[in-house]
Amino acid sequence: MKKEIPYKIYLSEAELPKAWCNLRAFMKDKPAPLLDGATLQPITLETLSKIFCKELAAQELNDVDKYIEIPQEVRDFYKMYRPAPLIRAYCLEKALGTPAKIYYKFEGNNTSGSHKLNSAIAQAYYAKQEGLKGVTTETGAGQWGTALSMACAYFGLDCQVFMVKCSYEQKPFRREVMRTYGAKVTPSPSQSTEVGRKILHEFPNTPGSLGCAISEAVETASKTDGYRYALGSVLNQVLLHQSVIGLETKTALDKYGEKADIIIGCAGGGSNLGGLIAPFMAEKLQGKADYRFIAVEPASCPTLTRGKYAYDYCDTGKVCPLSKMYTLGSGFMPAASHAGGLRYHGMTSTLSKLYDDKLMEARSVEQTKVFEAAEYFARIEGILPAPESSHAIRVAIDEAMKCKETGEEKTIVFGLTGTGYFDMMSYEKFHDGKMTDYIPTDGEIEKALAKLPKI
Amino acid sequence: MKKEIPYKIYLSEAELPKAWCNLRAFMKDKPAPLLDGATLQPITLETLSKIFCKELAAQELNDVDKYIEIPQEVRDFYKMYRPAPLIRAYCLEKALGTPAKIYYKFEGNNTSGSHKLNSAIAQAYYAKQEGLKGVTTETGAGQWGTALSMACAYFGLDCQVFMVKCSYEQKPFRREVMRTYGAKVTPSPSQSTEVGRKILHEFPNTPGSLGCAISEAVETASKTDGYRYALGSVLNQVLLHQSVIGLETKTALDKYGEKADIIIGCAGGGSNLGGLIAPFMAEKLQGKADYRFIAVEPASCPTLTRGKYAYDYCDTGKVCPLSKMYTLGSGFMPAASHAGGLRYHGMTSTLSKLYDDKLMEARSVEQTKVFEAAEYFARIEGILPAPESSHAIRVAIDEAMKCKETGEEKTIVFGLTGTGYFDMMSYEKFHDGKMTDYIPTDGEIEKALAKLPKI
Repeated sequence: MKKEIPYKIYLSEAELPKAWCNLRAFMKDKPAPLLDGATLQPITLETLSKIFCKELAAQELNDVDKYIEIPQEVRDFYKMYRPAPLIRAYCLEKALGTPAKIYYKFEGNNTSGSHKLNSAIAQAYYAKQEGLKGVTTETGAGQWGTALSMACAYFGLDCQVFMVKCSYEQKPFRREVMRTYGAKVTPSPSQSTEVGRKILHEFPNTPGSLGCAISEAVETASKTDGYRYALGSVLNQVLLHQSVIGLETKTALDKYGEKADIIIGCAGGGSNLGGLIAPFMAEKLQGKADYRFIAVEPASCPTLTRGKYAYDYCDTGKVCPLSKMYTLGSGFMPAASHAGGLRYHGMTSTLSKLYDDKLMEARSVEQTKVFEAAEYFARIEGILPAPESSHAIRVAIDEAMKCKETGEEKTIVFGLTGTGYFDMMSYEKFHDGKMTDYIPTDGEIEKALAKLPKI
Repeated sequence: MKKEIPYKIYLSEAELPKAWCNLRAFMKDKPAPLLDGATLQPITLETLSKIFCKELAAQELNDVDKYIEIPQEVRDFYKMYRPAPLIRAYCLEKALGTPAKIYYKFEGNNTSGSHKLNSAIAQAYYAKQEGLKGVTTETGAGQWGTALSMACAYFGLDCQVFMVKCSYEQKPFRREVMRTYGAKVTPSPSQSTEVGRKILHEFPNTPGSLGCAISEAVETASKTDGYRYALGSVLNQVLLHQSVIGLETKTALDKYGEKADIIIGCAGGGSNLGGLIAPFMAEKLQGKADYRFIAVEPASCPTLTRGKYAYDYCDTGKVCPLSKMYTLGSGFMPAASHAGGLRYHGMTSTLSKLYDDKLMEARSVEQTKVFEAAEYFARIEGILPAPESSHAIRVAIDEAMKCKETGEEKTIVFGLTGTGYFDMMSYEKFHDGKMTDYIPTDGEIEKALAKLPKI
């Protein structure tokens, strides 16, 4: 007899993962390597170590080891806010009247309000191990900046955050949370870097973007002694650390004899989705099990669904290495939507490759439809979701409603990456009927793609 | 051999309480009864049922049944956000270098951001059972209003919230969260009630207070068909529902063979503290075990430490029954401190009686010292605490430091009632060095106490 499934599955400390799952190591066809911007050759560990601390640079290039041990200090920190619960959405299922079983992995029960802390603490740990003074970073919605501030406070590192200007303005209290953890926060683009000044000169009224904040953070790290750069998404190392989401999810499902049919996650740079699907995709790649994976992106920044698979810069200022990925072009300036964390022109190379190989699907959704789903979910399941996370809710509900039509009892698992407590200005716009959708024209996308580097 | 204690103890669904613990039923010397304002006689079930729905009125008067079953629908809702974790503060212990063992029961992992949801869902359930259209209420810091909004959304009830004006202004996004759950929010005092207009006439620039918002909510409920009033603290029924906090805490400690020495909680109206201590105090009253209990209140509103034990009105407008309690006088207008949830002139009658009988201690602390503790705690334990909750953190740290001096290995348990995500304006003041302390003079308190009803 199957065990009765509780509303919330919490693993015990003993069941927490001891090693991260390195998805790329399971791929026979590897993602294309990062290229050095100066030589256009695959980047070396040495060059990469000028940007990231050594251990992280090594993880960035490691596509061989299937599992990488989680350091004890990081596991101890994980214990402060993990395991994250895997929640059976009994109330949502009932409200929808669907025969589908819906689960969501909730990563919002920590002060950063999201999954970002999973990688922040690992990156801060390695920086501390290497004897660095501090790190610089960018943040969009603010979760990553908060997460890194928390991690740096824990290990006694300095933390400098470049925050995308429109988020800085939409989320005035985020800055204060980061300050509580001792970080210095600068709206981006800023006058404090060369690349910031250049972008401001070209686009004086820009709301900023992740790509542009990244450039500023990298420049600052490279020009300051004892500092390295830390990034909250896109990178292989981040996907690696985020695999703790998928590993816990899989252990919890296995424990109750449940098998997922569809796994859904929002995708900006791809870190949450990459982490969530890691052990499941590893099974699929080994022919051990089959799953459908759906990446959900905003219609205003449709990287996978309307972008091109090509080498491109990871940042607007072109100071980072090049990555082969689905991209809208590093010059694409996404509209100031309410899902700041998803306003990124590219997609992590691993997910790009899996999508190109048709191992994963993608869908884009408009933000008004996303907020409809968010409010509906909040009233039924209690949790107030972040706009980014609500992209996954939207598609999970759509898939559950398809099951209602067909009568199929599918098991749907989605990642609920975080909470929306700092997004109330966005919810207010939605309540007041003032939220609009913005879908870029083909012409806009073509124009940005025309500037892709010729490689 | 003792089991190894994890960072976080989560009970299983099967271990969740099936009945609330009614602390008063364990007391030989009962708290004095509520008095009817019109007759000055003990209030009857009939009269009380005009304010509260019947089942809640019955719970309010029940000092006989030691345990009261939790309805299945309420238990199902509890499963959506409970069990709340009991967290072993390993990192804090290490940072303080104390031999004390520190535990905290964290109630912030739900959208209301606090323990308030425990009673909100019970009150909404009984209102729905009785066929009401909706409920009215007051809210200070906003947690209670959010909690009741969530509970009403779940059961399809209308919800009207009077929010203390200074909190309404300090926490602009709280209103939007309540709106997400469909509630109507009015800053108090308002022009929409008789009592509100009267108070505004007398004190045009008042920042408002809980006592005054209560009066407006009660008046609105009594004048609207199909509505009753719901209150988030002070009442016996609320302490009853909040006993889930203490019951879970005790089960978790017992499971690991731990015995608390000191139990600490912040106290505004007393609901969190009353709930936390319920099963422990029940043991103490039966001579089964001994504990020290410490109520922590703001120095700006020192109800227990500087108030008088006497019959007083529960609200500024004197529309509620009278309660024998520690009070600063219903006319006392507390300074607009940053712990809106603790700005209440009185204290629940049960805790007042226990304090008067010397079964519990009390301590008052200044808000700058509270924010120092809050920030320290956030950086070490990760969780960003609410200012209210941080009162308990302050005293827990103080007690742990005493253990460091004496070398005693005491076990300290405190209630971490909620998160501070909506308190960033207060944190900002603290960071900028602009936060001041306000301690009422003896003259101010005497003046308010002089107006106590002569009973």
